Amino acid sequence: MNKNTEIGISAVEGGAAAAKGFVAAGVACGARYEGRRDLGLLFSETAGGTAAFVCTTNVLKAAPLLVTREAVEGGGVVRAVVANSGIANAATGRRGLEDARRMQALAARELGIGADEVAVASTGVIGEHLPMDRIEAGIKSAAADLGPDGKAFAEAILTTDTRTKEAAATAEVGGATVTVGGTAKGSGMIHPNMATMLAFVTTDAAVEEGCLREVLSRATERTFNRVTVDGDTSPNDMVLLLANGAAGNEKITRDSPGYEAFAAALERVMRELAKEIARDGEGATKLVEVVVEGARSEESAARLARSVVGSSLVKAAAHGEDANWGRVLTAMGYSGEGFDPDGVELFFGPVKVFGGGAPAPHDAAEANAALAADEITITARMSEGEASAEAWGCDLTYEYVKINGSYRS
Amino acid sequence: MNKNTEIGISAVEGGAAAAKGFVAAGVACGARYEGRRDLGLLFSETAGGTAAFVCTTNVLKAAPLLVTREAVEGGGVVRAVVANSGIANAATGRRGLEDARRMQALAARELGIGADEVAVASTGVIGEHLPMDRIEAGIKSAAADLGPDGKAFAEAILTTDTRTKEAAATAEVGGATVTVGGTAKGSGMIHPNMATMLAFVTTDAAVEEGCLREVLSRATERTFNRVTVDGDTSPNDMVLLLANGAAGNEKITRDSPGYEAFAAALERVMRELAKEIARDGEGATKLVEVVVEGARSEESAARLARSVVGSSLVKAAAHGEDANWGRVLTAMGYSGEGFDPDGVELFFGPVKVFGGGAPAPHDAAEANAALAADEITITARMSEGEASAEAWGCDLTYEYVKINGSYRS
Repeated sequence: MNKNTEIGISAVEGGAAAAKGFVAAGVACGARYEGRRDLGLLFSETAGGTAAFVCTTNVLKAAPLLVTREAVEGGGVVRAVVANSGIANAATGRRGLEDARRMQALAARELGIGADEVAVASTGVIGEHLPMDRIEAGIKSAAADLGPDGKAFAEAILTTDTRTKEAAATAEVGGATVTVGGTAKGSGMIHPNMATMLAFVTTDAAVEEGCLREVLSRATERTFNRVTVDGDTSPNDMVLLLANGAAGNEKITRDSPGYEAFAAALERVMRELAKEIARDGEGATKLVEVVVEGARSEESAARLARSVVGSSLVKAAAHGEDANWGRVLTAMGYSGEGFDPDGVELFFGPVKVFGGGAPAPHDAAEANAALAADEITITARMSEGEASAEAWGCDLTYEYVKINGSYRS
Repeated sequence: MNKNTEIGISAVEGGAAAAKGFVAAGVACGARYEGRRDLGLLFSETAGGTAAFVCTTNVLKAAPLLVTREAVEGGGVVRAVVANSGIANAATGRRGLEDARRMQALAARELGIGADEVAVASTGVIGEHLPMDRIEAGIKSAAADLGPDGKAFAEAILTTDTRTKEAAATAEVGGATVTVGGTAKGSGMIHPNMATMLAFVTTDAAVEEGCLREVLSRATERTFNRVTVDGDTSPNDMVLLLANGAAGNEKITRDSPGYEAFAAALERVMRELAKEIARDGEGATKLVEVVVEGARSEESAARLARSVVGSSLVKAAAHGEDANWGRVLTAMGYSGEGFDPDGVELFFGPVKVFGGGAPAPHDAAEANAALAADEITITARMSEGEASAEAWGCDLTYEYVKINGSYRS
């Protein structure tokens, strides 16, 4: 908080339409779900600007992802998103690619812009084709419904999520107040390096394109790539960042005085969304935060933190509120990072449970109590260096198994 | 089977004491569990021979592992094992190491052999000290109880396992019939590269030491390193292979005519044990076998197969008997192996569900039915090369969460 005040950023209400010039809509088109929003449009009424994009590392890339990549990396400037939930349009062959292009063209026509200005995103079941008549009707209806509230859009992109995820912040940049806002979905198949996770972040800041890409890439590494729910990554994940320049600030570059504040506001919004994804992990009842300190490098700290937060045994122990710290040390041990176990101190909440290579005397009831909260922090303090990192996940519950044993049927 | 007959190997009854000259015992010493066997001894009455050892890749290595490694790599020839269950003696500092050495010395004294001829193994909860008075009483009682039946030893090494795991085979080698037998434990924290898994394999074959190490290493790669239950590896895992030469065969080297038959018998025994571990995964109701064919290399095929069998979403789908093949393709996609998704064909049992980059027309009920069996096979046929590999795992169930949310308490 102090750091935020220093560099002039503040949290505000709102989501993907919080920044000036952005409008959004979400409607129910019945592609797969009955009676809930499943098609969304997000649009910058201000033309121009810049866009950046990060997508799944999965070898299998869904059709909408290919179409969006073309748009972002091609000649046009992406200023709109059409997204649907329920069907992922992944592993759907040539017809899937045609369907994704058709979604793009339909949205462009309704918005009166070029197809290369439209990103396409889908999430849901893999290997099924989209019912294009319903999608088309949905796009028309969403275009007629665009407005300054991002909530309906945030709803339209959900699958097994139990709630919408939105965050926004403002920053003082080059004499202007700029807003960054975003919405995300993601609940299962969540894992570092882009899992079934869609995030759409918008800003009214004017940002130079290379700078926008750089800031997005670093913030993604520190936020969405630090979340794991179940170890699975999906073919559909993307983070899209649209910057329309409507705030009227002097264009941000790597050397601008406002660079740091803008980057901090973006990272803050993305961190909030990332934590909301972890908290809403399929079947989750707790947010688990793992902090690794004293590591050789931030990358090493992140790898260790992710290994712990991704361990099924740690997740099950969090659910059972059993301060089984041996599982934490074990997960660090198989992370692939070398370290001296004797130089590690482990804490559940404030309770030290391990240090100097051996169990630290502690009250087991107190350590278990640290796991009874809705938000749990497990800290590993190492003696390898000065770097630290956080990762977020959730507990493993019966409900996860139930959701994923019958999601499709 | 045909291949086995060709090279002259046959499955036989028995476990770690099936080979000539080996005796075993298992007793209840009450180290942690009440009223069940928790301390075992395995012993070759024939002196000499050779031994080989593979241990966990976890940075955190339990005290017994360090002591065993010293014994195997030191001057003596290991011909005995003392093992306990309930407490892993891991992350227990200097006192843990002293306890492991004391277990070794106590067993050596009872058996009338050198301490450097004794391997030590522990499995159970991490971060607790062994009650050495009970362990000592247990070792005395087990030494008095040694006999040709390996069953009690197989019981004494179990933790959350629901049943013992034993396998044995014979092979015709250099004019003699040699026997290979083994027992294993492992149910949770099971993952490629040695999870909480103990396996003790014995043979009455005479085998040159370098050759024994090589055969064990390759067989481990193809069997125990292809099993995953929950993605966690443990600090305590080991596979120990003792060869006492009691069968009287000419010593097997890399160039012996009997080399191949011996290696096949060993691999067969270890594969049976590996599959038993997967089948008995914590909370499991099904054995899941994933076969990857047409891969660039055996290593690549194994990595792909392990990624699929380790996916929480695939495991949950197996439990729900939902032929959600998109999750299989997705798990292949994030395995780290590059491949052409359009060149992959996927099968649930005999039912082809995907090919040519798109869903293959099939009867969903038939595909789901292929998942209703106790043993499920998922096959991925690729177009990258000629290599293939198998991996084994289990379904993810409510029971897994229950066991691991409360294992320690």
